[in-house]
Amino acid sequence: SQRVDWDLSMVDKGGYPHFMLKEINEQGAVLRNTMGDRIKGEAVDFSKELGWSQESFAKIKKIHIVACGTSYYASLVAERLMEGMLPIDIRVEIASEYRQRSIHLGEDVLAIFVSQSGETADTLAAERLAKSKGALCLAITNGLGSSLAREVDHVLLLKAGPEIGVAATKTFTGQLAVLYLLGIYMAKLSGALSSEEEGRLVKGLLKLPYQIEEILERQEMLKPIAEKYASSRDFLYLGRGRSFPLAHEGALKLKEISYIHAEAFAAGELKHGPIAMLESDIPVVIIAPQDSLYEKLFSNVVEVRARKSPVIAIATQGDSNMKDVANDVFYIPSTDHELYPFLAVVPLQIFAYYIARARGCDIDRPRNLAKSVTVE
Amino acid sequence: SQRVDWDLSMVDKGGYPHFMLKEINEQGAVLRNTMGDRIKGEAVDFSKELGWSQESFAKIKKIHIVACGTSYYASLVAERLMEGMLPIDIRVEIASEYRQRSIHLGEDVLAIFVSQSGETADTLAAERLAKSKGALCLAITNGLGSSLAREVDHVLLLKAGPEIGVAATKTFTGQLAVLYLLGIYMAKLSGALSSEEEGRLVKGLLKLPYQIEEILERQEMLKPIAEKYASSRDFLYLGRGRSFPLAHEGALKLKEISYIHAEAFAAGELKHGPIAMLESDIPVVIIAPQDSLYEKLFSNVVEVRARKSPVIAIATQGDSNMKDVANDVFYIPSTDHELYPFLAVVPLQIFAYYIARARGCDIDRPRNLAKSVTVE
Repeated sequence: SQRVDWDLSMVDKGGYPHFMLKEINEQGAVLRNTMGDRIKGEAVDFSKELGWSQESFAKIKKIHIVACGTSYYASLVAERLMEGMLPIDIRVEIASEYRQRSIHLGEDVLAIFVSQSGETADTLAAERLAKSKGALCLAITNGLGSSLAREVDHVLLLKAGPEIGVAATKTFTGQLAVLYLLGIYMAKLSGALSSEEEGRLVKGLLKLPYQIEEILERQEMLKPIAEKYASSRDFLYLGRGRSFPLAHEGALKLKEISYIHAEAFAAGELKHGPIAMLESDIPVVIIAPQDSLYEKLFSNVVEVRARKSPVIAIATQGDSNMKDVANDVFYIPSTDHELYPFLAVVPLQIFAYYIARARGCDIDRPRNLAKSVTVE
Repeated sequence: SQRVDWDLSMVDKGGYPHFMLKEINEQGAVLRNTMGDRIKGEAVDFSKELGWSQESFAKIKKIHIVACGTSYYASLVAERLMEGMLPIDIRVEIASEYRQRSIHLGEDVLAIFVSQSGETADTLAAERLAKSKGALCLAITNGLGSSLAREVDHVLLLKAGPEIGVAATKTFTGQLAVLYLLGIYMAKLSGALSSEEEGRLVKGLLKLPYQIEEILERQEMLKPIAEKYASSRDFLYLGRGRSFPLAHEGALKLKEISYIHAEAFAAGELKHGPIAMLESDIPVVIIAPQDSLYEKLFSNVVEVRARKSPVIAIATQGDSNMKDVANDVFYIPSTDHELYPFLAVVPLQIFAYYIARARGCDIDRPRNLAKSVTVE
C-alpha cells in the first residue's frame, strides 16, 4: 500500500497552500449559496427574511450604508447600483467617521451596516447611534449570532462559510451579492423597477458563479504578471463609476498582504495631482470593463503609458484594443454593465495573492492586522 | 549710486523664491479680502450677492457640492461644518464621478460647484447636468468671467488674486472661507442657527488671518523637519472628522510638488488594512487639533509609533502630551473646533514646500500637471 504524507493544515485548506487562495476559489459557490433561495425564477425574494410591504417601505426616504475596510468598498459598489434603480437618496460612509459626524438620522432612514464578523467596533457604535435616532437598522454579515446581528431590526446573512484568511475575499463577493439583491428588492418595493429589468439582472446574477469559475480556471495566468511587478514598492489602481471602489478594494488587498503601498484613485482625478507621481517603476492597475465608461478609461491607459508607467489592465473578452496599449491584460467574461464588479474583483484578489507569495509574505496572517477589528 | 541686480521674476514673486511660497504667505490677506464685506458686525451677509429669502431658500431640500482635486477636499471640510448646522442633507462628490452617476437631481437641489479656475472640464460638465435637471446652481471660483461663472445662477468669488503656483494653496483657504460663510448664511436662512452661535463662529473667523500670520512667522521651523524626511518615498497622512479631508489635502500637496507617494486615510480605517504597510521608513503625518476627536487621534499616534514609523503631528499650542509620543510636532494656535482646518492646512502646505525644495523639484511647475484641467 502507498503511504501518503498529509499535512493536516492542507486538509483544512482543501489542498490549497493558503486559506486566502482557497477562499478566492470558493467564490462561485459562495455566490450560489448566498443567492440560493433568495431568487425565485427570475425574481428576487426577501419576503421571508424582511417581510416589508410597499406600504411599510414607503416610509423610507433615505438609505445610509455604513461599514469599514473591504465592507465599505463593497457598499460603495452597491451604492452605484442602487442610486440608478431607487427613487431614494443613498449615501455610504466609513463607520469611524459616521459615528462622529452629524449626518441627519431619523425614522425615515434605513441604515444598513455591513461587517463580515458583525463585531467591528466602529460599525457597532454607528449602529447604536442610528438606532437611538429611530432609524430602521439592517445588518449584512457573515457573523450569525454576532453582536451586530443581535442588535438590528433585520439581518441578512452571507452564506460564505468561515473566512480564515485575514484579507477578505469571498465575503466581499457575498456582501456584494446581498447588497445587489437587496437593491433590486427595494427598487421593486418602491415601484421603480420593471420585471423585465429585474429579470435581466437576475439572469446576469445567476450566470456569475460560472463566469467566476471560468476566471478561476485561468488564475495561473496572473502568476507571471504578478511576479514581474512583485518588487515594486508603489502601485496605483484606477477605476471610474462602479470600478472606482473596486480599485480601492484591489489596492487594499495589495497593502494588506504584500505591504506594498498601493493607492486607488477615481481615474478622473489623475490629472488633479496623482499623475505627477508617475514613474516607470510605479505600475498602474486599470479596471476597464466594456461599460459606458470604457472610452474614458482607455484614454487614462494611454495617458499613463505616456508617463512610462507600466499598465496592467482588467478588460473584457473581445476587447482587442487594450493589448495594444497596456503592458499586461487579464480578460474577464462579458456581463451586464452593473455586474462587472463581481468578475473584476477576482483577478485583483489573485494578483495580490501571487505578489504576496512572490515576496514571501505571511499571506493568511499579515503583520499588524486582526481578522475583525473589535477595538476602536 | 549703487547698482542693484533685480531678478524680474523675484519682483513678481514679491521676494519669495517661488510663487507657491508667496501664495502660502498671502493667506492671511486672502482670508481678510474674501470675508471682507461679507461680514457685517458679527453676522454673515450675502444679501447683495445671493438675495435669497427664507421663503425662496425653503425649497432647497438637498445640497450637492461637486469639485475636483484640492477644491474637492475644501468641499469635504465644509460638508462637515454644514451638516452640523443645516437641517438639509449635504453630499460632496468628485466631478468626474458625479457627472456619470445617477444621483437624484431636481429643483429641490442646490448644486454648488467649486473650481479655482472655473474652467475645470469635469466640473463644468457636472454643472450642465445639474442645470438640465433643474437644480439651482452656484459657483465658488477665483475665475471671474470663467465659463463656470457665466453659466450658473449665482457666483461667489474668492478674492485670492491670481494663483500662479500649480499646487493650490491660497485658493484652498479662500474656497474654505466662502464655503463656511455660505454654510452659516444658509443655516440662518433655514432658522437653524442662533445669532449667538453665528457670533461665536464669525468672531473665530475674524481672528484667523492673525493666527495664520502667527503660524507663518514660525514657518522656518518646518524646514529642518521637512529636510529630515525629504528622502522618504512614501508617507501616510491621518485625520478624523474635519481633519480627514485635510489629511487628503496635505498628501495631495506632497504628491504634486515632491512626487512622493503620500496617501491619506481616515484614522479609523488604519486597522482595516493600511497599518500592515507601516515601516520605519514611512513617516506618518497626523492632524490632531484639540477638538472632540483628539483622544482617538492620540491613540493612533501611539499605535503608529509602536510600528516604528516616525510621526509628525500637527497639534494645538498647550498640548503638552503630543511631544512625548510624536517625533516632531508643529503647533497651531487654539481656535473653535470648527475652524481648525484653516490653521492646520498652513503647516501642511509649508511642509510639502520645504520637502520639494530639499528634493530640488520644480515647485511652481511640477511635471505632468496643468494649473487648470480643462480637458477630461
